[in-house]
Amino acid sequence: MGVERTQVGIIGAGPAGLLLSHLLALAGIESVVVELRSRQHCEQRQRAGLLEAGTVATLRDAGLAKRLDVEGIEHGGIYLQYAGERHHLDFRDLVDRTVTIYAQTEIVKDLIAARLAAGQRIDFSITDTSVSDVDSSRPVLRYVDEAGAARAVECDVIAGCDGFHGISRAAVPDVVAYERAYPFSWLGIIADVAPSTDELIYAHHPDGFALHSVRTPHVSRLYLQVPAGEAIGSWSDERIWENLQKRFALPGWTLREGPIREKAITPMRSFVSTPMRYGRLFLAGDAAHIVPPTGAKGLNLAVSDVALLAPALVAWLRDGDPSLADTYPERALRRVWRATHFSWWMTQMLHAVPGDAFNTQLQLSQLRYVTASRPAAVTLAENYTGSAPA
Amino acid sequence: MGVERTQVGIIGAGPAGLLLSHLLALAGIESVVVELRSRQHCEQRQRAGLLEAGTVATLRDAGLAKRLDVEGIEHGGIYLQYAGERHHLDFRDLVDRTVTIYAQTEIVKDLIAARLAAGQRIDFSITDTSVSDVDSSRPVLRYVDEAGAARAVECDVIAGCDGFHGISRAAVPDVVAYERAYPFSWLGIIADVAPSTDELIYAHHPDGFALHSVRTPHVSRLYLQVPAGEAIGSWSDERIWENLQKRFALPGWTLREGPIREKAITPMRSFVSTPMRYGRLFLAGDAAHIVPPTGAKGLNLAVSDVALLAPALVAWLRDGDPSLADTYPERALRRVWRATHFSWWMTQMLHAVPGDAFNTQLQLSQLRYVTASRPAAVTLAENYTGSAPA
Repeated sequence: MGVERTQVGIIGAGPAGLLLSHLLALAGIESVVVELRSRQHCEQRQRAGLLEAGTVATLRDAGLAKRLDVEGIEHGGIYLQYAGERHHLDFRDLVDRTVTIYAQTEIVKDLIAARLAAGQRIDFSITDTSVSDVDSSRPVLRYVDEAGAARAVECDVIAGCDGFHGISRAAVPDVVAYERAYPFSWLGIIADVAPSTDELIYAHHPDGFALHSVRTPHVSRLYLQVPAGEAIGSWSDERIWENLQKRFALPGWTLREGPIREKAITPMRSFVSTPMRYGRLFLAGDAAHIVPPTGAKGLNLAVSDVALLAPALVAWLRDGDPSLADTYPERALRRVWRATHFSWWMTQMLHAVPGDAFNTQLQLSQLRYVTASRPAAVTLAENYTGSAPA
Repeated sequence: MGVERTQVGIIGAGPAGLLLSHLLALAGIESVVVELRSRQHCEQRQRAGLLEAGTVATLRDAGLAKRLDVEGIEHGGIYLQYAGERHHLDFRDLVDRTVTIYAQTEIVKDLIAARLAAGQRIDFSITDTSVSDVDSSRPVLRYVDEAGAARAVECDVIAGCDGFHGISRAAVPDVVAYERAYPFSWLGIIADVAPSTDELIYAHHPDGFALHSVRTPHVSRLYLQVPAGEAIGSWSDERIWENLQKRFALPGWTLREGPIREKAITPMRSFVSTPMRYGRLFLAGDAAHIVPPTGAKGLNLAVSDVALLAPALVAWLRDGDPSLADTYPERALRRVWRATHFSWWMTQMLHAVPGDAFNTQLQLSQLRYVTASRPAAVTLAENYTGSAPA
């Protein structure tokens, strides 16, 4: 087994790892990207799909928005529904910002295409990934490639972009993790039917939260709060639509139904691991933190981590200035905690907690306040669009 | 036992009952006020002391602010302290409002003096209070007066202003109560020492929350978060000052100590009872709802209940229009829930929950946000000063 060399070894070909590789390459820094899954798997798994203006700007500035600028759907706000009323929050008016609907899976396709076109090496379908010597000046990334060959890549820096279940985080000793589990999950579906709404509907309902999201002009994304530990097998398509119809019901408005193409249940968790750097190992995205999806922050946080990490690594590896790399963990964590708090706040405001009638009344009071007080609406809008001070 | 007559039988000579009696009298409606405790007890018990501008306006409009206007201390904001920093929130700048320090016990003295001067009948030190026939047109208030005589007062309306432990609420059938207990209490002291601060300091600290309040230019009111169920006997004056010093510590700032005149531990509870009206029985103030003291809302809610109830009863009993009385419960509850939510929000942001490190980080992120984002600061300010839409 020969030892190869690169400047940055990147574990994970999700949005964080691929974008990091791309931004580094733009500044002349070379990298190797390795990924457990196949390319096909990476390009097909359904994840988030709502981009902050800052995320769009990062992708556009990096020359990655050609398709996004055509297919992305700009939203100027959201609807909050509760107690049988549907209220619009107008982000343009409140904070002069918008968000853009464009699925993570499309971003990953665009990134893989761009990287491969630039001659980037991405090793998919690897196994036995490990990192070592991260506290030395030459950390080593080891793995077995798709052909079964053991590889060792000596790096200046390793970036752990391998998600919540990845191996990177475990290489940081003395981790302090902050965590909260929620007693409910999201059942998400993708349905081949035109969305019944122009912008997302966040619905508070005694039976549980529901979200009507949009994937494309012809495809709807819908979610139902279900109890934690629920099995997807107990949710027939009929039962799903019945519950969606009930939770979104509004006089004069119709929820269109269509064939359900995919359905899955996702647990809800808040998780922040610190530090985000140990020696020459840097963590970014879900490898370091998870938010419940209520605030649509997961993908945006991954991009904002990388938007801080890439220039920090460029300054260090190309220009010899380690100061941005030194402050990366602290700067990233500020934004992580802002998003973590906001995601928790949206989650606790919208999800039913059976048996806690006090909580229900608190939620309704909070929802009334957010829709009645302009400064309260601005706090939601500035967090949702990613313009809140961190 | 002869049956007497009055228009409004008022149970409780706290701020709610006395103010109601006063406002009714101004409109020519007569009342009888009965109170379990002695006059001396009512005038001496230490309670809240922070008045919203609307509360001051209500008292002033009713001719009750002569002493308040001289002795009240106007505050234009509060300090939020966390992570070793003390930040000022300037309410004048944020919402063009102020609050006023003037102890509840002084308001009660002023109210009792004003009522007695006007020839109002207040029966102190009564026992065996009961109400009956509240769903008829002639409800009856029964009690045994200080001299031991059984009294029965036939009323047009009975107002239950007898606090959380009063008997009025139990006379409402089919009550739905919303409640949350908190796993901590407040240890409050009154100390004969000039306040060390010009405005209240709300301090987040790993050991627990602390509040430096102000009673008069020569008397300080200070609070420490302690575990629920804590006995006051285990808190010597020395231990109290030691903990206050630690939680408020800030370079260049000194907490002055002085003789502790009173100390007591108060449990923290959120409680809302509905409906606030049954037949001809109306509830106001703590009889219907309790908030944890973190938002300084208890006294202000009692006054705002009465500010709605008094004109409603005048319109009904003097002018024959029951519509305001019919909508009193709904209008009062909107404000009650706004204050209940705000009090919960302040409480969860500031109190330590031992063993929940995730919660601590959420709190710090939220505190940073409130002090960094103007709209977030406005939401705190408009709730604190009582100008938030309900």
